[in-house]
Amino acid sequence: MALQKLRPEWNLRLWARSKQSVERALRFFPCVSRDEAGTASGTDLCVLCTPIGAMQSLAEKIVPALSSSATVTDVGSVKAGVVRRLETILGGRFIGSHPMTGSEQSGFDAARANLFERAVCIVTPTTNSLPASTRTVRNLWEIVGCRLVEMPPEEHDECVARVSHLPHAVAAALVNAISLRVPDAGALAGGGYRDTTRIAAGPAAMWREILLENSNGLVAGLEDLSTTLDKLKQMILSRDAAALELFLERAKAIREDLP
Amino acid sequence: MALQKLRPEWNLRLWARSKQSVERALRFFPCVSRDEAGTASGTDLCVLCTPIGAMQSLAEKIVPALSSSATVTDVGSVKAGVVRRLETILGGRFIGSHPMTGSEQSGFDAARANLFERAVCIVTPTTNSLPASTRTVRNLWEIVGCRLVEMPPEEHDECVARVSHLPHAVAAALVNAISLRVPDAGALAGGGYRDTTRIAAGPAAMWREILLENSNGLVAGLEDLSTTLDKLKQMILSRDAAALELFLERAKAIREDLP
Repeated sequence: MALQKLRPEWNLRLWARSKQSVERALRFFPCVSRDEAGTASGTDLCVLCTPIGAMQSLAEKIVPALSSSATVTDVGSVKAGVVRRLETILGGRFIGSHPMTGSEQSGFDAARANLFERAVCIVTPTTNSLPASTRTVRNLWEIVGCRLVEMPPEEHDECVARVSHLPHAVAAALVNAISLRVPDAGALAGGGYRDTTRIAAGPAAMWREILLENSNGLVAGLEDLSTTLDKLKQMILSRDAAALELFLERAKAIREDLP
Repeated sequence: MALQKLRPEWNLRLWARSKQSVERALRFFPCVSRDEAGTASGTDLCVLCTPIGAMQSLAEKIVPALSSSATVTDVGSVKAGVVRRLETILGGRFIGSHPMTGSEQSGFDAARANLFERAVCIVTPTTNSLPASTRTVRNLWEIVGCRLVEMPPEEHDECVARVSHLPHAVAAALVNAISLRVPDAGALAGGGYRDTTRIAAGPAAMWREILLENSNGLVAGLEDLSTTLDKLKQMILSRDAAALELFLERAKAIREDLP
């Protein structure tokens, strides 16, 4: 939708897996197909937008149809494993991407043309990457309005484990922990509960896959959080008002510094 | 602002502590004063909107000026201690309230007339409460658009420790824990980080006071959360995809059930 609007002269094709998705997509796009190889054939750039676990077989289906100059990227939330598997199949023309946007919603009904505006997109080239393909992928995300950050796939996973996957895990844990003693928490919820837990409504199967794929970084993040929560509990138990206020001030300063 | 709009025939008076606040308030209200007793004198209803720690001395200042039929309420986020202290000073005409709305912002510049619309307001009468005062306070919050919930102060504190104070503590802990390994988290943040941590930007001194005032409930909530996070970590370490998906599904179902 963003490219239709911003690059109307581009020849856009969409692939979808199910018949139902094809029907929905046809409301927005003139060219939608269930044929992977046919969709990829002759394109300059393919963007894989499936769950992480489906990308390898999708890449295998499109590779025979790709022209030699085609670039491929993806939008998966975990990069090291994806990039390793897809570079093996596609070579240096595959460049991993992670546009950090979206919501707890999914599917065509949640699509909007301005989803990428001002979002951070992390691009993860490796020593195998073709420089021309990296430029093509960076250009794509710039066109739709992303702020680009470039880092190796492993560094991406370590950072994103903290900045994205940990908040997701915590939002789900918070909802479940609160419900242990306040089953009707929803009836009492203010904006704090609402915002802190919003992403817990995201698709469970997709997030199960992401959290397991990035388990190393996430477990390290969970351990940092447990240590931090224990410190906080000690400040409260010992009624250390000065330390507690410093803890809250520090979080406030960091949070207010968000661009 | 809400009452000015919805009950223009009411005679509204505002008290503020500092000269600066009085000047700001005068932009919105014709009648603002720094004199506690003078403001309270002859009123039917007083609403105490100060930090919890300031309420006792404020109540002591206004009590000689209150007419015998006046009702007093407050908007503090913790109730058992506040209600106990203020009932001692004001008697059964004091009824605790907690409108669960607001944001990480504070002060007159963050004020808006529709702040209370559809917000939950917990009203906490006790066996000492005058029924007429409870009706007056319930009526106030209904006028400004709140959904009313009534429960004893102690039950309020236990529920709100989980539904409001725990999310606040966790948002601050999350920001601090993430910053340990990703100091520039802000540069990578998507909507998940942004929403999950929004309330961590709230006023530190006010929240320090709230978290210490409700320490029992909060510590119990932190322990429930730690146990839940440990279970989650074990699911990830043992790669138990089924249990992890169930955990995420459960949180999703509860979160989607919010009114």
